[in-house]
Amino acid sequence: MEPLVNVLILSAGSRGKLVSYFQRALAGRGNVVTTDSSELAPTLYLADRHYVVPRITDPDYLPTILDICRRESIDTCLSLIDPELALLADHADEFRAVGVTPMISPAEAVHRGFNKWDMYRFCVDNGIPTPRTWADAATLRADLEAGVVALPLFAKPATGSASANIRTVTDAAELAEAWALAPDMIVQELMTGEAIDVDVYIDLITGEVISLFAKKKLRMRAGTADKSVSFKDPALDRFVIDFCRVAGFRGAIDIDLFVTDDGYSLLEVNPRFGGVYPHAYECGVDFPSMLLRNVAGEANEPNIGAYEEDWAMLAYEEVVMTRIEGLSRN
Amino acid sequence: MEPLVNVLILSAGSRGKLVSYFQRALAGRGNVVTTDSSELAPTLYLADRHYVVPRITDPDYLPTILDICRRESIDTCLSLIDPELALLADHADEFRAVGVTPMISPAEAVHRGFNKWDMYRFCVDNGIPTPRTWADAATLRADLEAGVVALPLFAKPATGSASANIRTVTDAAELAEAWALAPDMIVQELMTGEAIDVDVYIDLITGEVISLFAKKKLRMRAGTADKSVSFKDPALDRFVIDFCRVAGFRGAIDIDLFVTDDGYSLLEVNPRFGGVYPHAYECGVDFPSMLLRNVAGEANEPNIGAYEEDWAMLAYEEVVMTRIEGLSRN
Repeated sequence: MEPLVNVLILSAGSRGKLVSYFQRALAGRGNVVTTDSSELAPTLYLADRHYVVPRITDPDYLPTILDICRRESIDTCLSLIDPELALLADHADEFRAVGVTPMISPAEAVHRGFNKWDMYRFCVDNGIPTPRTWADAATLRADLEAGVVALPLFAKPATGSASANIRTVTDAAELAEAWALAPDMIVQELMTGEAIDVDVYIDLITGEVISLFAKKKLRMRAGTADKSVSFKDPALDRFVIDFCRVAGFRGAIDIDLFVTDDGYSLLEVNPRFGGVYPHAYECGVDFPSMLLRNVAGEANEPNIGAYEEDWAMLAYEEVVMTRIEGLSRN
Repeated sequence: MEPLVNVLILSAGSRGKLVSYFQRALAGRGNVVTTDSSELAPTLYLADRHYVVPRITDPDYLPTILDICRRESIDTCLSLIDPELALLADHADEFRAVGVTPMISPAEAVHRGFNKWDMYRFCVDNGIPTPRTWADAATLRADLEAGVVALPLFAKPATGSASANIRTVTDAAELAEAWALAPDMIVQELMTGEAIDVDVYIDLITGEVISLFAKKKLRMRAGTADKSVSFKDPALDRFVIDFCRVAGFRGAIDIDLFVTDDGYSLLEVNPRFGGVYPHAYECGVDFPSMLLRNVAGEANEPNIGAYEEDWAMLAYEEVVMTRIEGLSRN
């Protein structure tokens, strides 16, 4: 009989497909446990067991999660939201101390991935093509005046998430306004080519890129692609593998790129399961099983390109029902 | 053996749950056929049969649909998008001539429902509480100066759909800008109370309200509620039944209301299945079966309030896959 394996998905929110993919990978060998700070997160009611927990900024948060790990005999955990990744990375040893292998990259890589200005400088230092970026108004003004760059440009917070305070700026007034939106605003070249999203699994044991899945985003809705199409390009595989060799990420990560006249350009990295990961899974690229193999102490064999192109993923709404006494009178 | 019944869902888009609800209501007695102008509409690949068709504004559209009705022996059809409802209503006899009972309200009611200014005047004339509305800048300016109304207000096109050009206006400059957004802009009192959505089925044969389902919208995402909770209120039932008695709608419709200090206030009516109808179905309020009964020539018995309160509907993403040769190289 195979040993029990229990998986904890933190801040699981609306990512219902991922819950079912882990349940399939476990095939009855253990539980998928989910947490969220809102009792209205659908994944709570799709998992085998669930907990409503404090917000990640609450001092009780980490003790609560570690307690759930002990109580549910959790073997591996992962988070689905960017602001929690640094917390997992910084406290990885506390998880390991209670028998949990967190799916998280080293703290240095996570902190760099979360700060788009740090990531930009890292790419420049390592020769990785990325949109030209400015973190201060004076330098950008000088470059605009020198004709090194031209409007329109794209403004966003260096540490933002969920598309907050992002915008295209088309003139000087909008640019001045954009710098004031957040204390850590950065301004980038506006990418106008095709938007590419790559799911990558980097083995927790060997540190090698084991699997990757490339798709073109065909339509965005509420900050994520709800229609996408799979494709393959050996040049993209090399780009991703070369980047991962220096960037230090581990486990499932998500890379956003754009196509430019000079090839691919790396926009940002989210060191967690990407929002469009279901496309990869439905094409046979099964990261949950790779993670479970790592958690069992086994390395995965690299298997790049094990999927077909031209498969479209088309998203639509599914619902889960739950009765919450008194909710309609709140 | 029961007769075959085939259902045609026009402009089915991403409304995958509705396809499965009709399939369940048919229970193998016939096909659900879907159409859309985009080959990337997920409902195409969820239905028993499907057609990619011209856009509704194309002169070939109606002949194409009537041809599908004949070829697929369609018994009833319905559309899921507002701009198509007038077309169905205006050409209802052509559908009937090919043996189809369209689920559509009379043309007068449909045209009134599509024009929010006409709907406002209809409500005022019939004593139905509705937000105070202005269709011209001069009258509104006079009322603002007389202190009859105060900013902020809410601006939208009288014939808009999918949340285009809607906005809250907080000062005179924003108001002036809003009037220019579309040729048919209207400005309404800003409703700040709870947002209510009611699904109603009005029998095609008796014209009576047979069933209704009330929910509070708990969170909006991409123009629709992705979290809602069921509730019951006899005062709301009376409001809806009284409104429907004069408004002339038929079949499944969707009514948006707000709670005010003086009771419910009717915001707008969409004479089609509402976007949050899955909540009603999952609580046992089965409009597809009511429609099939009507199509078979039987009236439905009124059955108001046959559901429980405090059931939350929580939406999340499901996906359907399809291979489209060459799509990744387009």
